Amino acid sequence: MEKTAIFHRPTDNFAYLLDDRTLQLRLKTKKNDVTSVSLIFGDPYIWRNGEWQFSKMPMNLVGNDGLHDYWETEAFAATKRLRYGFQLTSLTEETIYTEKGFFDSIPTDSDYYFCFPYLHENELFQAPQWVKGTVWYQIFPERFGNGNPSINPKNTKAWGSEPPAVNNFFGGDFDGVTAHLDHLTDIGVNGIYFTPVFEASSNHKYDTIDYMEIDPQFGDADALKELITQCHSRGIKVMLDAVFNHSGYYFPPFQDVLKNGESSPYKDWFHIHSFPVLGGEKPNYEAFGFVDSMPKLNTANPEVKKYLLEVGTYWINEFDIDGWRLDVANEVDQPFWREFRKTVKEAKPDVYILGEIWHDSMPWLRGDQFDAVMNYPFKTNVLNLLAKNSINSKQFAENMSKVYYSYPKTVFDFTFNLVGSHDTARILTECNDNINITKQVFTILLTFMGTPCIYYGDEIGLTGGQDPGCRECMDWDENNHQLELKNHIQTLIALRTKEKLLANEGSITFVHPTEANGIFGYKKHNATKTIIVLLNPSSDEQQYALDRDQKYNILYSSGLLIEGSNVSISTEGFGIIEYNL
Amino acid sequence: MEKTAIFHRPTDNFAYLLDDRTLQLRLKTKKNDVTSVSLIFGDPYIWRNGEWQFSKMPMNLVGNDGLHDYWETEAFAATKRLRYGFQLTSLTEETIYTEKGFFDSIPTDSDYYFCFPYLHENELFQAPQWVKGTVWYQIFPERFGNGNPSINPKNTKAWGSEPPAVNNFFGGDFDGVTAHLDHLTDIGVNGIYFTPVFEASSNHKYDTIDYMEIDPQFGDADALKELITQCHSRGIKVMLDAVFNHSGYYFPPFQDVLKNGESSPYKDWFHIHSFPVLGGEKPNYEAFGFVDSMPKLNTANPEVKKYLLEVGTYWINEFDIDGWRLDVANEVDQPFWREFRKTVKEAKPDVYILGEIWHDSMPWLRGDQFDAVMNYPFKTNVLNLLAKNSINSKQFAENMSKVYYSYPKTVFDFTFNLVGSHDTARILTECNDNINITKQVFTILLTFMGTPCIYYGDEIGLTGGQDPGCRECMDWDENNHQLELKNHIQTLIALRTKEKLLANEGSITFVHPTEANGIFGYKKHNATKTIIVLLNPSSDEQQYALDRDQKYNILYSSGLLIEGSNVSISTEGFGIIEYNL
Repeated sequence: MEKTAIFHRPTDNFAYLLDDRTLQLRLKTKKNDVTSVSLIFGDPYIWRNGEWQFSKMPMNLVGNDGLHDYWETEAFAATKRLRYGFQLTSLTEETIYTEKGFFDSIPTDSDYYFCFPYLHENELFQAPQWVKGTVWYQIFPERFGNGNPSINPKNTKAWGSEPPAVNNFFGGDFDGVTAHLDHLTDIGVNGIYFTPVFEASSNHKYDTIDYMEIDPQFGDADALKELITQCHSRGIKVMLDAVFNHSGYYFPPFQDVLKNGESSPYKDWFHIHSFPVLGGEKPNYEAFGFVDSMPKLNTANPEVKKYLLEVGTYWINEFDIDGWRLDVANEVDQPFWREFRKTVKEAKPDVYILGEIWHDSMPWLRGDQFDAVMNYPFKTNVLNLLAKNSINSKQFAENMSKVYYSYPKTVFDFTFNLVGSHDTARILTECNDNINITKQVFTILLTFMGTPCIYYGDEIGLTGGQDPGCRECMDWDENNHQLELKNHIQTLIALRTKEKLLANEGSITFVHPTEANGIFGYKKHNATKTIIVLLNPSSDEQQYALDRDQKYNILYSSGLLIEGSNVSISTEGFGIIEYNL
Repeated sequence: MEKTAIFHRPTDNFAYLLDDRTLQLRLKTKKNDVTSVSLIFGDPYIWRNGEWQFSKMPMNLVGNDGLHDYWETEAFAATKRLRYGFQLTSLTEETIYTEKGFFDSIPTDSDYYFCFPYLHENELFQAPQWVKGTVWYQIFPERFGNGNPSINPKNTKAWGSEPPAVNNFFGGDFDGVTAHLDHLTDIGVNGIYFTPVFEASSNHKYDTIDYMEIDPQFGDADALKELITQCHSRGIKVMLDAVFNHSGYYFPPFQDVLKNGESSPYKDWFHIHSFPVLGGEKPNYEAFGFVDSMPKLNTANPEVKKYLLEVGTYWINEFDIDGWRLDVANEVDQPFWREFRKTVKEAKPDVYILGEIWHDSMPWLRGDQFDAVMNYPFKTNVLNLLAKNSINSKQFAENMSKVYYSYPKTVFDFTFNLVGSHDTARILTECNDNINITKQVFTILLTFMGTPCIYYGDEIGLTGGQDPGCRECMDWDENNHQLELKNHIQTLIALRTKEKLLANEGSITFVHPTEANGIFGYKKHNATKTIIVLLNPSSDEQQYALDRDQKYNILYSSGLLIEGSNVSISTEGFGIIEYNL
């Protein structure tokens, strides 16, 4: 047995509450090394005749990432206290793995074992439950709809009359969104994530001038209130984008520092290295990505903290928003986010907090900061497989397994999945305008664990390269819409709404292809049924053998044929199949 | 290369701040598998010609735990942002290890790498600096000195006239401690950790009746104030013991629940399963270790929280205490401890917070809860080696390495080391009354990383078995003192005070014996010198070859002889040797 590959620690993705009596436990071992694992567990204080009293139950081999196998079980802790260890068997060996190392026989003293001292309900990871049923729609407000031409900014171009550029304006506004809410309802989405709407000079508004004001080109407070009221009456949630890592160049406190230097009352609102303050290629102050127009805010300064926390509650209290998306969230200090969470959850207990983090995000997802992060590894892997063909489906299953098992299930249930945004090329363009492949991408987006987000216009087949190309005006001429794609997305959202297993209930296990680019997918299951999502990533028709020859329904498919327990999927086809156990 | 054994994650013991520009990074690999490791690192935003710009530096092989090697380095992040990966070489192979897995060549995109997005000073683990220079002395106040017989409880026995029993009293009190502070100064300790002093009915006072009152058998508020004032004027810190996991049976709110059941206003102060409330062997309420006289407090209840947080600040504000030791800290909810830290640090920024946790404590030591935990694994390993002979010195070095590398260095610098307490047999008794072995135990206690604590009377050779045997009255007759032991401890404390490397400055690496029970120890080093602590755990004289034949001083030793670079240590001997680099 390869003992050096065996890992567990009673924290993070390896041990977490499912409720106040149930702890989900995971263990990793070298792939194909250990043949069975049992959990040894009990209350540390229950002893008889000088020996600790424990129970034993088998753990399930639930997945692998190519290097490691993952074992999982749910331990019921009747008394809320738990000590536990693992009994591992390989073809040649048996060992007991505890906090104090490996032993040949079962230690009789509970002190040797891993400890989860007490299951407290307030340590359960808790994101708002409504998010599980949400399909997000990301709107870049300058480009979705122009509902009030009277507030157009200077030099506004006619809607869609020219390609999106770094500095052009088309007059999109809140009324334009309000006017087109039927489109959202029609697709089936029930949450809007708006990129920034606060006063700023660019068309993308990430260069905040005033965090307390709506940019006049989008409308006034009444227009936003009207929009949010109409959204709420349709069951649509609204999330705004907060750029707290850095301000815009024209943020008055930064302008004051530029003007007054060391005597500015705002000099400690930023991270100024020396005076006078100088921009340019190497600004003498901290800036996002060294860009002098994005001076980093000093979120450890109590004044800045107070101001930004007021921003956090103002838009909740005054406009009843439902969520905050936090730009460059990883570069802001974690103590700030802990206070932010406390403050905004006091204002609205079920407000959703979504951080923009591209890398391993465990430290921000321990329950005291964010409810979710944007799942870029999901996007990367889906696109690498289906659009760029830089990995095969075996690698996809391994990579996604690695990401999945690196978070508690309770966290991953809320991950924010996306396949495109205002920062990336359009998904149809990434897929070389291939509708079938784009449909596969959406099949995964809308049936995977987590909460999907559709970038405005992707559902009707807008195209475009990297920013600014991907920020085209929404095309409201239905004759131009890719109806096959739109229908596919509508169907999947409807299916997801009806069949909760396709959303975020139950568990997921990955279907690893037997061959390098074979049929892949995942099973989603609860106590009574299993739904299996299968996709063919190759340019050949492929076969897949279902686990058992029993009753099934095809919930939705393309290019899929089932004979007995044998599935054939044609090129770029997919199938969503349901078993009742 | 055994890739399944390789592990890093940018959190906890693997990546942590040393200051706001320096990140200590660790990696583990299979023991004796990887021959060299380099860190690849840089600011994620510095690119040239489409390629990420990184630096490379070697990592040091700093230790092993028998299964894994540990590699370490300090990465300087000039711009406070860091992406990094590891280039590993074995005899047969080279690989790049990143967040996205293993690669044959160095990825040119910074997105592949592990990310520590920004080094924020307020994310540095910060325990009070004074603790680094503290040697604690644990006092069980009923048994240290009777300074005021007029407040003796009923049936007080003459001092030391009979063995300690579960229910007898000897009248120890605050004045008795005040009267004997010269003894503490004489030994050289400069911190007192008092077991509970609040109103309670037992002699140990862990059964709190009133958290706001001093137990009258110890004196009044003035007596405690006088004691603390005198301690402070001698440079001695004072830490009290808080039992917040459970109250005593006679805590008025619990008595109210017993009397009034469901109509008691305190019914939610505990975890009552049903009414009427029934004690006995299986109480129908949560209790510490199922013991009905220790009802668990509901620390998630805002009223309880408010009360206990007031307790936390009251003793700081009114009595100027310097620390809180938290009993059964692991079974109290972590959100409570986060608020506790915030509250008591506001009252006194450099107050010390010490949790009683016997097992892996990483989740409580992330900077938002405790400054330290009681290092029971230290005690267990020292005693298993030297007193119980159940492990050999090779296992000791491996076990302690495993514990050491499971925490950030910044955390372990503050660990609270002990070799005995009111809960364990006396150390001299554990060592079968062997003074030489007991001296070895204290050599380790007083020179290891962390803050040592001496249990009252251990320094003069008190003996006694498990509780209550270990709670004997302090013997003030110097004729009965084990002077050899006392002198040894005095010498070590004086040495530790003079030579900061013997306390908590610099770094530690373990000396693994070449043979199963060979000479072992550790090196403590900074940029200019190394101190090596060597011990012989066997019943044979043993040899040890020093690393280099250069100038050294013997700081303190017993049974040690150096010829050239060859060290001989006789049975149970030790040596503390200093090199200047």
